[in-house]
Amino acid sequence: MAPLKTIEWTEGKIRIVDQTQLPLYLTFTFINTAEEMFWAIKTLKVRGAPAIGVAAAFGLYLGIRNVPDSSSFDFFTECLQKTAGYIASSRPTAINLKWALDRMQSLVRSTKTTSSIEQIKTMLLEEAKRILAEDNHICRAIGEHGFAVLKEHTTLLTHCNAGGLATVEYGTALAPVYIGKEKGKIFHLYVDETRPLLQGSRITAFELKEAGIPLTLICDSMAATVIAQGKIDAVIVGADRIAANGDVANKIGTYSVALAAKAHAIPFYVAAPLSTFDITVKNGKEIPIEERPAEEITKAFGRQTAPSDISVYNPSFDITPHELITAIITEKRVIYPPYEKTISEVTAAGLLI
Amino acid sequence: MAPLKTIEWTEGKIRIVDQTQLPLYLTFTFINTAEEMFWAIKTLKVRGAPAIGVAAAFGLYLGIRNVPDSSSFDFFTECLQKTAGYIASSRPTAINLKWALDRMQSLVRSTKTTSSIEQIKTMLLEEAKRILAEDNHICRAIGEHGFAVLKEHTTLLTHCNAGGLATVEYGTALAPVYIGKEKGKIFHLYVDETRPLLQGSRITAFELKEAGIPLTLICDSMAATVIAQGKIDAVIVGADRIAANGDVANKIGTYSVALAAKAHAIPFYVAAPLSTFDITVKNGKEIPIEERPAEEITKAFGRQTAPSDISVYNPSFDITPHELITAIITEKRVIYPPYEKTISEVTAAGLLI
Repeated sequence: MAPLKTIEWTEGKIRIVDQTQLPLYLTFTFINTAEEMFWAIKTLKVRGAPAIGVAAAFGLYLGIRNVPDSSSFDFFTECLQKTAGYIASSRPTAINLKWALDRMQSLVRSTKTTSSIEQIKTMLLEEAKRILAEDNHICRAIGEHGFAVLKEHTTLLTHCNAGGLATVEYGTALAPVYIGKEKGKIFHLYVDETRPLLQGSRITAFELKEAGIPLTLICDSMAATVIAQGKIDAVIVGADRIAANGDVANKIGTYSVALAAKAHAIPFYVAAPLSTFDITVKNGKEIPIEERPAEEITKAFGRQTAPSDISVYNPSFDITPHELITAIITEKRVIYPPYEKTISEVTAAGLLI
Repeated sequence: MAPLKTIEWTEGKIRIVDQTQLPLYLTFTFINTAEEMFWAIKTLKVRGAPAIGVAAAFGLYLGIRNVPDSSSFDFFTECLQKTAGYIASSRPTAINLKWALDRMQSLVRSTKTTSSIEQIKTMLLEEAKRILAEDNHICRAIGEHGFAVLKEHTTLLTHCNAGGLATVEYGTALAPVYIGKEKGKIFHLYVDETRPLLQGSRITAFELKEAGIPLTLICDSMAATVIAQGKIDAVIVGADRIAANGDVANKIGTYSVALAAKAHAIPFYVAAPLSTFDITVKNGKEIPIEERPAEEITKAFGRQTAPSDISVYNPSFDITPHELITAIITEKRVIYPPYEKTISEVTAAGLLI
């Protein structure tokens, strides 16, 4: 299991693994300001829905820690709100980002206005640390629930990276694999390389190899074929946002894998913390999809691989409709169809924060 | 339309466009021996099922042209057979390669043994030139038939390169697009980049741009999404081999696109010359699938994009089952399901050479 800490609060700043440098270099970057965090998220130095939630919480703290302690409460909350809006604009699809920022802000709203600005700042730092600590527990719980579902299988296919490096430490889609290893069950992972930015080959392959989990790397276009060949028992992926009806936004290419899983009647699982659910959106059509620069496709590896001046479409996520999803594995329970009902039960039980 | 000649016989040698250098450099390579042709095919300097058929025919001629004219007929045919076997081993999936070599060999078999070796060599060169000339007519005819089928549509999606650079000049899947342009109908093409070797972004985007056809480049993993978004009217791809039941072997990733087309009820067309049919194989399961080096996935862009020493699976082709194919567009007619019947009719009509 990855002993690597994706995000760590250390001596008044944040230390992150710079994931753009993997797999060749394992480098750490220190982040001191909200601006640095905005760019770290936007350029994918820190990525993965749960991890950017944690990163955003710390980024918000960094953005307000230098507001003078002598400021009025109103001025302070205005600064907080502006910084939150700024950080939220770094990536539009992953809801965990917004969830963490909302959680930090509502803490301030529920604070007695008699608290000093200094006290509020300390509370915000503690809250960010709590979000980080909770991520570990949540991922481990996802791993336990997921392992219970997956333990009869052996060969899994995953897309993108929803492993330890997408969270603080343990992962979502890969958490059951790491839990499995602790319990003596070794899964074999087929890993989609995940164009354009190759989070599969660069990050998932890296962390699985480090953890001693056997893997086979394929191109995204090969997933349907390995499924057709009967090589895959089940698919498991993460999520960036889940709508009230169970539609899932996840890394572009997920939908394609889900169609192949359906065509060959193998289960397709999504693993995500409850903070990924956004019951304010009815279905996948309402989820905003981030579009990224053309150069990620035409020059992604430092070499021009397409003619210049052509039109490119580069959506970062796609929507997998709920009909294609066997179950959604969360830290509290495994959610099965009909999702509209089961997700609203989770909401009613107050499990969504 | 590409005025570019992919393969040309010129002054006793063959000139090919070195497609590994596209889109940055348009370079030509001269080929003087069967060995050079073997490597040009194996390393994909010349690629595309119809083009490698033509290339193989010339390669076979190059391999026997220095057999002494004083040789016995038996010795000559032995050399011919060995060279044909050698060239055929360069790539196992595309049947046009074998088809062209068989055609050259059966010409010799049907020759009067009274012909001199010198005469036979001349006949073989003429036959290779004929195969090249026919390719032009065939592609144009595919274009006419394809245009009749596609003319009501506007936006097409294609995978890999089955354009002018996959043939001598005109293409198969893209031939209807070029014919359309001549007739004043402009299609808009969505082009899958086609990992691992990016024939879509490097070659299809290059030739469409040169021909003034509007295009949008996407990653393979985005095809299902643009189809789901209603952006695509029809899919058209080429083929490397077609079984007696209509199952199609084509570039890896084709099957994935076919599943998405089916899920969203848009037509999925295959365009290929009759030389692509192999009625000796009953179905797709019997078609050998070439596996290529791991480095194409882990180091394809001159930069290592995955950890070293991991397992990689790199099949060059996949099988699209006939149920997913709306029609197969050939130079003689458009073939519709039920394919077992319609393909055997084509065979019975003596249309397969």
